[in-house]
Amino acid sequence: MNKENKSKIKNNETFEKFNQKNDIFNRSLWDKTVRSKKTEKFYNDYTKPPESENRPEGYKHKDYAFRNATWFMSDTFSNIHKNNGRAEGFTDEFKVQKPGTKSKYIFKSNKDLTDEIKIIAKKLGADLVGITKSNPKWIYSHKYRRATDEVKPNKIDSSLNRVIVIANQMDKDLIDTAPSALSGSATGLGYSNDLTTILSLSQYIINLGYKAVPSQNDTALSIPLAIEAGLGEYARNGLLITKKFGPRVRISKIFTDLPLECDKPISFGVKNYCSICNKCADSCPPRAISFDKPSFKQINKSNIKGIKKWSVDAEKCFKFWASQSTDCSICIRVCPYNKDFDKLTHKIGIKLANTPFRYILIKLDNFFGNRKKPSEWWANK
Amino acid sequence: MNKENKSKIKNNETFEKFNQKNDIFNRSLWDKTVRSKKTEKFYNDYTKPPESENRPEGYKHKDYAFRNATWFMSDTFSNIHKNNGRAEGFTDEFKVQKPGTKSKYIFKSNKDLTDEIKIIAKKLGADLVGITKSNPKWIYSHKYRRATDEVKPNKIDSSLNRVIVIANQMDKDLIDTAPSALSGSATGLGYSNDLTTILSLSQYIINLGYKAVPSQNDTALSIPLAIEAGLGEYARNGLLITKKFGPRVRISKIFTDLPLECDKPISFGVKNYCSICNKCADSCPPRAISFDKPSFKQINKSNIKGIKKWSVDAEKCFKFWASQSTDCSICIRVCPYNKDFDKLTHKIGIKLANTPFRYILIKLDNFFGNRKKPSEWWANK
Repeated sequence: MNKENKSKIKNNETFEKFNQKNDIFNRSLWDKTVRSKKTEKFYNDYTKPPESENRPEGYKHKDYAFRNATWFMSDTFSNIHKNNGRAEGFTDEFKVQKPGTKSKYIFKSNKDLTDEIKIIAKKLGADLVGITKSNPKWIYSHKYRRATDEVKPNKIDSSLNRVIVIANQMDKDLIDTAPSALSGSATGLGYSNDLTTILSLSQYIINLGYKAVPSQNDTALSIPLAIEAGLGEYARNGLLITKKFGPRVRISKIFTDLPLECDKPISFGVKNYCSICNKCADSCPPRAISFDKPSFKQINKSNIKGIKKWSVDAEKCFKFWASQSTDCSICIRVCPYNKDFDKLTHKIGIKLANTPFRYILIKLDNFFGNRKKPSEWWANK
Repeated sequence: MNKENKSKIKNNETFEKFNQKNDIFNRSLWDKTVRSKKTEKFYNDYTKPPESENRPEGYKHKDYAFRNATWFMSDTFSNIHKNNGRAEGFTDEFKVQKPGTKSKYIFKSNKDLTDEIKIIAKKLGADLVGITKSNPKWIYSHKYRRATDEVKPNKIDSSLNRVIVIANQMDKDLIDTAPSALSGSATGLGYSNDLTTILSLSQYIINLGYKAVPSQNDTALSIPLAIEAGLGEYARNGLLITKKFGPRVRISKIFTDLPLECDKPISFGVKNYCSICNKCADSCPPRAISFDKPSFKQINKSNIKGIKKWSVDAEKCFKFWASQSTDCSICIRVCPYNKDFDKLTHKIGIKLANTPFRYILIKLDNFFGNRKKPSEWWANK
């Protein structure tokens, strides 16, 4: 079995495309088993930071003030067509681009085009870029409109047969303070940085006379597209693990009709490592991460049906977020792949993780990965 | 004379606050001596990239497509209240922030507050941050409204007595291709990156219960504020020279009522170096940069009156931009301070530039600073 087949995502006959109505954020609006006073407070706190100082460090006024500020750019763009009931980047694709040129720029070759798109993506802030086919399996079957509680079939222009998948790293120092409202700033920064990249890159493509539809959580599942675009491997914590930033990335994507050359999936030992390392499952306060082997089991309707993988219990996960009134990144912080891979020791470590030395690495890694105190972060220590 | 006095900006009795109506971009709309078919094409090309391939390299369809894409975020925000005749970031301050909290967050001390604001600014993308008093000398006497050709007194809330000045580096590789439409992408990226920083940082301040007014080219002159905030020294090319990025920065600012501690102006030899180095003046195709000593002479109405300094002829400068149909950064590219100061040799160089060795450095520097071919940039060489 070659590397490509090994990292291929397996489905069985029960497979069904995912309906975005069932993602946990949408369920927290329409599904009474998920919605609660706490989930409502969770969202309200993103609009207006809680001012109480009688809370543990990392959950105080200035932590929320900062976390909410990091979301500013994302909030602005997701609300840009709010009056039409759209939540761009969450349930709807972005429709903010300016018209382009009539003539199509002719590239010397598809290889040249692909190389140049990757250069431009990086100049526009992308940390990692991969290209894949627009695989219909990962396109949502239905969209959900939050404002009106409507479910509608998700249509996508069939000429958009390539996806440019972008991963941007999240701030390590902030993630190291998880769980805290402060660490939620890494998420906000991630969304806001992604935005600049995908909106500007889409405008570049449109300016060349081609089509580009920028997307964050809307339209399609990002993780399988990122895997198919060669950005990383799937992990026990339900996240993408990249070679350069481990699980500490945000993913966004652009659907386009540019005749781009596709990348291939990669394998660098994550599957084997996750099989014997249960650090994320061990560290998850609500026990939302499984200790089991990958399986076709659907824990609840927020999991896609008929895909063999490690699945996360989104109900338990989100209930914990609501109880803390901020998102949680513990499973990112404690992951042994959450390292600064510019450092030589970690460069060697990630190679060894793909060998039987992983058994020793797992033991060693228990000495690292402790939470940084939010007060230390604020003191710039 | 101590360092602070040495770098103080001198005015005489003819001093007048600058009227933004007279900046060259506004004059290119109302002043027939500046406006032309070429200046109109210059602006139109930012909306719709020219598609002709019969142009020199660096000025082709894909160069303009990229340059315009880098402006996407800035364009979106400057047009956000276009229907009210506002051009936010250019002639009007930004009014896009969400309401904040009622209670004011109480900091342990002004020192703590100042340190924390600088940490947050950097996490939000700022490369350099300085604080200064809101000096009324640099606030525009009048605003100009482009949509209606109106001139109105520029009022600013008197409680906003501190200015947080932000400088973000421009991309060196792109600047190295100046002059070209491609190098104009460094400008667009600079504006777009600045935006994220000042809009998010302002939201943070507002989320703490204080006031914040984010500003780019609107409201006040950025360079003297940056000098007073200790970000760098003034140079022959009319730009700010910073220690870390030389002249390769964009400047923006936030007016606030936070009781911040002010920084002090710095001096690291730029004035002496510029006095004997005429590289920018020599390299400027329209001869817009003076070979003379600093003086109170006003070249034309686009210069502020009654300030002793090197002045640039904005009419000649902008005429050249219009003739190329893109902005020009030659005086940034050729400046001996346009270096990558992470490199040890340049770290030593900037120290020597503040000693009599500058005479030798100037000779040596003629061997460097050549234009990079746009085709090499595209080939990622």
